[in-house]
Amino acid sequence: MSTEDPGFQVALHEARQGSREGGVPIGAALVSAQGKILGQGHNMRIQEGSAILHAEISTLENAGRLPASAYRGATMYTTLSPCDMCTGACVMYKVKRVVIGENKTFVGGEEYLKSKGIEVVVLNDKDCRDLMTKFIKEKPGDWYEDIGEDE
Amino acid sequence: MSTEDPGFQVALHEARQGSREGGVPIGAALVSAQGKILGQGHNMRIQEGSAILHAEISTLENAGRLPASAYRGATMYTTLSPCDMCTGACVMYKVKRVVIGENKTFVGGEEYLKSKGIEVVVLNDKDCRDLMTKFIKEKPGDWYEDIGEDE
Repeated sequence: MSTEDPGFQVALHEARQGSREGGVPIGAALVSAQGKILGQGHNMRIQEGSAILHAEISTLENAGRLPASAYRGATMYTTLSPCDMCTGACVMYKVKRVVIGENKTFVGGEEYLKSKGIEVVVLNDKDCRDLMTKFIKEKPGDWYEDIGEDE
Repeated sequence: MSTEDPGFQVALHEARQGSREGGVPIGAALVSAQGKILGQGHNMRIQEGSAILHAEISTLENAGRLPASAYRGATMYTTLSPCDMCTGACVMYKVKRVVIGENKTFVGGEEYLKSKGIEVVVLNDKDCRDLMTKFIKEKPGDWYEDIGEDE
């Protein structure tokens, strides 16, 4: 797993797209065991006034209805450590692995994922971190609302 | 907390509406500390081809963007024990309490909620159980897909 992975590149592309839209700059991509992109998306809190469309949730939604077998062996790439909701979604659908761009600006449910037997890889990517650092500085209210925290 | 609670009645109404629509018959309602219904909804997997619109997630989405403070002291009523995704959403938004119609047909993240300090109440309601029992018998494929399990 590296920043060269197509899945990670798609997730980073989505995060940048979210940033261009003025949204929370987090992107994700779900890649099957065979390497197929099943879905991709980015956080839509600001763009759609959504309380639930975090990047991973958008990605699962954009992938559409799939049988349980489609998630087996799959990898969820996300540019930021997943919150408890997105962690739970990965646990519920039993993905094999979660690859995280960075976890310096926020740490989510990584330990819970591991406790459920899901592999966790953190890439420590500077681009992901820079996107979040800039956003949190510019729009702290939107960011803390997105993770259910007081500013 | 009882089946007489307005929040539970709204959740049950939503579950019945989902059933009438031919969907997964699970409903939910989010009620503020002051007793205001902040949002309500039902599972939309079949109706919208959605992989993420479980009852609790629909409810959070229908409640719209809210500051973290709006969820403090709130109760999530749901007709069925919440899956890992919906459990995580309740943890992320730090609701105070989750009131569950029934947990005989499915048990989700109740222990995880408790470990995070969230109160869990199970009502053992027959109407909720009957809706699920009938649905699982009639559409097992849709049901197991909804919780990421093989049929």
